[in-house]
Amino acid sequence: MIIVMKPENSKEATQKVADKIKDMGLKPVCMEGTERTVIAVIGDERLLEKLHLDGDPAIESVSPVLTPYKTVSREAHKADSIIDVGGVKIGGGFFGVIAGPCSVESRESFLETADAVKKYGANFLRGGAYKPRTSPYSFQGLGEEGLIILEEAYQKTGMPAISEVVEAVDVPVMEKHINAFQVGARNMQNFRLLQALGRAKKPVILKRGMAATLEELLLAAEYIVSEGNPSVILCERGIRTYETATRNTLDLNAVPYLKQHSHLPVIVDPSHGTGVRELVIPMSKAAIAAGADGIMVEVHHNPAEAMSDGAQSLFPHEFERLMTEIKGYLELEGKTLA
Amino acid sequence: MIIVMKPENSKEATQKVADKIKDMGLKPVCMEGTERTVIAVIGDERLLEKLHLDGDPAIESVSPVLTPYKTVSREAHKADSIIDVGGVKIGGGFFGVIAGPCSVESRESFLETADAVKKYGANFLRGGAYKPRTSPYSFQGLGEEGLIILEEAYQKTGMPAISEVVEAVDVPVMEKHINAFQVGARNMQNFRLLQALGRAKKPVILKRGMAATLEELLLAAEYIVSEGNPSVILCERGIRTYETATRNTLDLNAVPYLKQHSHLPVIVDPSHGTGVRELVIPMSKAAIAAGADGIMVEVHHNPAEAMSDGAQSLFPHEFERLMTEIKGYLELEGKTLA
Amino acid sequence: MIIVMKPENSKEATQKVADKIKDMGLKPVCMEGTERTVIAVIGDERLLEKLHLDGDPAIESVSPVLTPYKTVSREAHKADSIIDVGGVKIGGGFFGVIAGPCSVESRESFLETADAVKKYGANFLRGGAYKPRTSPYSFQGLGEEGLIILEEAYQKTGMPAISEVVEAVDVPVMEKHINAFQVGARNMQNFRLLQALGRAKKPVILKRGMAATLEELLLAAEYIVSEGNPSVILCERGIRTYETATRNTLDLNAVPYLKQHSHLPVIVDPSHGTGVRELVIPMSKAAIAAGADGIMVEVHHNPAEAMSDGAQSLFPHEFERLMTEIKGYLELEGKTLA
Amino acid sequence: MIIVMKPENSKEATQKVADKIKDMGLKPVCMEGTERTVIAVIGDERLLEKLHLDGDPAIESVSPVLTPYKTVSREAHKADSIIDVGGVKIGGGFFGVIAGPCSVESRESFLETADAVKKYGANFLRGGAYKPRTSPYSFQGLGEEGLIILEEAYQKTGMPAISEVVEAVDVPVMEKHINAFQVGARNMQNFRLLQALGRAKKPVILKRGMAATLEELLLAAEYIVSEGNPSVILCERGIRTYETATRNTLDLNAVPYLKQHSHLPVIVDPSHGTGVRELVIPMSKAAIAAGADGIMVEVHHNPAEAMSDGAQSLFPHEFERLMTEIKGYLELEGKTLA
Repeated sequence: MIIVMKPENSKEATQKVADKIKDMGLKPVCMEGTERTVIAVIGDERLLEKLHLDGDPAIESVSPVLTPYKTVSREAHKADSIIDVGGVKIGGGFFGVIAGPCSVESRESFLETADAVKKYGANFLRGGAYKPRTSPYSFQGLGEEGLIILEEAYQKTGMPAISEVVEAVDVPVMEKHINAFQVGARNMQNFRLLQALGRAKKPVILKRGMAATLEELLLAAEYIVSEGNPSVILCERGIRTYETATRNTLDLNAVPYLKQHSHLPVIVDPSHGTGVRELVIPMSKAAIAAGADGIMVEVHHNPAEAMSDGAQSLFPHEFERLMTEIKGYLELEGKTLA
Repeated sequence: MIIVMKPENSKEATQKVADKIKDMGLKPVCMEGTERTVIAVIGDERLLEKLHLDGDPAIESVSPVLTPYKTVSREAHKADSIIDVGGVKIGGGFFGVIAGPCSVESRESFLETADAVKKYGANFLRGGAYKPRTSPYSFQGLGEEGLIILEEAYQKTGMPAISEVVEAVDVPVMEKHINAFQVGARNMQNFRLLQALGRAKKPVILKRGMAATLEELLLAAEYIVSEGNPSVILCERGIRTYETATRNTLDLNAVPYLKQHSHLPVIVDPSHGTGVRELVIPMSKAAIAAGADGIMVEVHHNPAEAMSDGAQSLFPHEFERLMTEIKGYLELEGKTLA
Repeated sequence: MIIVMKPENSKEATQKVADKIKDMGLKPVCMEGTERTVIAVIGDERLLEKLHLDGDPAIESVSPVLTPYKTVSREAHKADSIIDVGGVKIGGGFFGVIAGPCSVESRESFLETADAVKKYGANFLRGGAYKPRTSPYSFQGLGEEGLIILEEAYQKTGMPAISEVVEAVDVPVMEKHINAFQVGARNMQNFRLLQALGRAKKPVILKRGMAATLEELLLAAEYIVSEGNPSVILCERGIRTYETATRNTLDLNAVPYLKQHSHLPVIVDPSHGTGVRELVIPMSKAAIAAGADGIMVEVHHNPAEAMSDGAQSLFPHEFERLMTEIKGYLELEGKTLA
Repeated sequence: MIIVMKPENSKEATQKVADKIKDMGLKPVCMEGTERTVIAVIGDERLLEKLHLDGDPAIESVSPVLTPYKTVSREAHKADSIIDVGGVKIGGGFFGVIAGPCSVESRESFLETADAVKKYGANFLRGGAYKPRTSPYSFQGLGEEGLIILEEAYQKTGMPAISEVVEAVDVPVMEKHINAFQVGARNMQNFRLLQALGRAKKPVILKRGMAATLEELLLAAEYIVSEGNPSVILCERGIRTYETATRNTLDLNAVPYLKQHSHLPVIVDPSHGTGVRELVIPMSKAAIAAGADGIMVEVHHNPAEAMSDGAQSLFPHEFERLMTEIKGYLELEGKTLA
């Protein structure tokens, strides 16, 4: 940790900070420069968080040298993590194609879409039962009824089912029916939910918040892992920027960055990441080329009648084309659909 | 609602959309332009949301003419709403100064700070009992113990106590002890929480999410109000931008914009909105000048030792200066501290 | 164009707006809705810009139906444009790899880097002679001396040379020495420069401004094309967002979006787009997969001693690996290096 | 300067960096930590920029301790700078109200507006002669004819005239006619223009770029000052964020931040900062309360017919109200209109 003292600060103030650091069992190195005094700390700086030095009016800035996350970092675990979701693997060369509608609207339509995506090669199913909607007047999902449909689809097709969890209280019922939890962008920093998922036994797909930094995403993953659940899959789904031509700005830089800084699998959601049907196929290919371990794609048997996110959902025949087009990219990257 | 058809679209596709609109009881007006066909809809366009027209591949864009929120809009209710929080009013000329530490750290320190802020003129107390923290290794709050301290402080000082709620399950216990709920930026779109608060009997201070638009903030307020709780206070607390000199970018444009589009009171949090102690006083004054109905300020008896947000907390003597400096501004704006 | 009148507006105000529209030779269709009056305009709405209707206090909003750009749009010209830069083609299946150092630092070092990138397969050279630098105390480029070195390198290697132009006054001297102009992000809306380039005879690589929307990028291209120079290549180079893990956020959504809305070639700069050497190769592959017609990559014979942008420059052996890795992607996309 | 070495780096690499630092006459202090080696540099770190250490692959990060700007910093010059513009002062207690239309459209209309703003109390005139417009099909300004009108207005009213400069080549002709230059947001990093203005003899109002950090704004000011022109006035005019309810997000945090870090006057442009006529008055008051030394406001004799920026221009009677309303705020802040 590097502490820069304010220019007008006294020797006493510097000494006081140095003493606090020593009391924590670390070694302060004070350096008087031409315009500022700097204190470098030697030892495990994460212990210093308890000192809350940034509140000290004699201090100009406090900069950590180490990342604030630990267990999810690549330094902590050199090899790629491979996560087993309902018997199918993601990560370390195993590629996941998670497909399905934004929300489970009815048993018939969901099973129809499930059959279609299976036929074209998806290996995971997605579908929302609890929908967080911006407007209180929008469709809010089928609830547990939707979970039961997801379970049935898993049993019929063999594709593990993934669904969004929006509150800690739903974790037990969801864990009974589905194969993996999805944490939506709006809940990436719902810490109660993260803690509950840390105590769950099924994998978690953690979506990046729409204004979250990559460091915050990794810290949110750390929340889950530090509570005991190591099976976390990170998901880039676009961030909010000033650009309005697309619904979000898909930040594919995040893919190689996260892969270099963490051992967790990284997938991409090009449906939310673009919000535009016509961009989903090229951005799916780009995600693979950037090093992603999977994609999560919205497919609906008839997007013109979807109850949510129709504009970004693929028709089944478009999904077929997607699966055909990504084949060569997966080969180049040495990835296989388990 | 204005629907623009794609250039390559056929007359049949346009007719099909027009028929759907008629089926909902509204009137479509189709206009063939030189390069595009446009359909304008006459009638209550909010009914059209159920049609999910944006998923139709023949449609280029769908633009509402009306705002998606209703009950919280200024058109629905011309006069300023005045909210009673534990016997003290905010809105319509009544100004609130909500002061206190980021989190309740101990009974002694909290009561000490409460006395100090009362002495200098605050009329509401703040203090977190449940803290949403970015890192799992940070201080997480005292929980119900903190709520009890807040209640004691209210009884001793007469200043109504406000505290952050992070999950729907905590609403009943909090409602027992405190005078108003605060929804933090990370939970502005935690819709379960909003619904639970909509059924609560105490007022809600709703903070803008750090990447939320003003329209989304008003829709989040609509969630609470539409469930039955009309006592919502909007809070601008800074948004996330590329600028790193300050912790957030305090968007004071939001104050007059929200006042013009909604009847709800609007307050400002200059502590989170700047993240820098030295900027809190000037931005408090600016908030009043922009038309705010209150400010929410972090004050700690010794920020150098605060367990969270020390860098942006005022020392008691700085809070005294703040209260002295804003006096003239409140007079100019015709606002009084109830 | 769709004009929404304010709720409190009178029939006279609506009539006045309608009359203005008729006077321009267009047809207004007035629709009185339940809460607002809407006027739709039939005819070439671009003529209406002269009316400056957005300044009218009786009008709530003015929304165009058509894009504001014309000649660069895909609707104006269905086929991909192919641009000839110094005898080598970009666009329509021809892929460009533009490589070289951020700035031309000396004759020897530049020719050394030029030889290296040629050996590994680049087909265009880049190098700055006039450097726009954030700090007045940074290296500002060699000026015309640098241009002469670029020309020599072109003659020796056969690779057309591209260099950044920062002011209209430099256009003639640059046109004498180099094969194509590059407009940097900071100058995307330097309209004098765009106009001067519109009258030049050599192609222009137009980089997206760091806070520019895609529509603004296309309008900037329209500036150049409408002045008479049709040879414009669009370049995505990352936008500024709140994320600080990377220097910029490379917006690859821009690639398929621009290809769908414009006939101009689109290239990507993964060096500025990431700012991190380790991310350049994966993001180059992702750019190709997203549909790019070329990449622009910083390569330096020894980045540890580069006078600018060292952190994002590739070593020659890294560039060799880049060229090896992208081969398969170019084949999949049916792109060839001319 | 603090240099953090990569974890896998060798002692030799650290020694090599330390040697380079010593060669520049500075003192490196190497500290081997538990997970990283850190080198702190003692001495004037600004000399190290020439080393371009960030390009070294053995180095993880390079963080300056000092600000990169010098002459414009508050540390360099404790007292507020007071700038004389055509005989009228701004800064250090002197407040400037710069009013006028976005562009000079005709002699008659400009003189009419000039008379109106003078009558209500403005002390500076603004009006564009060279307009940078996003679309090539928009009105581009009257050029030198506009400058002559500005000069006439100055002579008639005594209000110094300010106009936007868009290219270095125009500096001499503008200097002949007007009293101060304005650099628009799009040109904040047009370094050629900044250098030309650094050699001019008249003051410069430097607007913040729409994606510029405050540090970049101060560095742009440093460009002008370091070339010999100390008369720079900083202008906050809103930044580009994801929020679309307003044209820009006016960042008033910038005002106290800039005042604390620089001795230059700081003014605010609430017209561009909001883009909405109804928000101009409240945000003008907020700017004063935040500590601004002036405001720049668009006023048009009939905004409904303005050729640019009509939606954000005040009617003369609204400007009158603005001047009445700010009076009390100026008194509270101890500011006078010279």
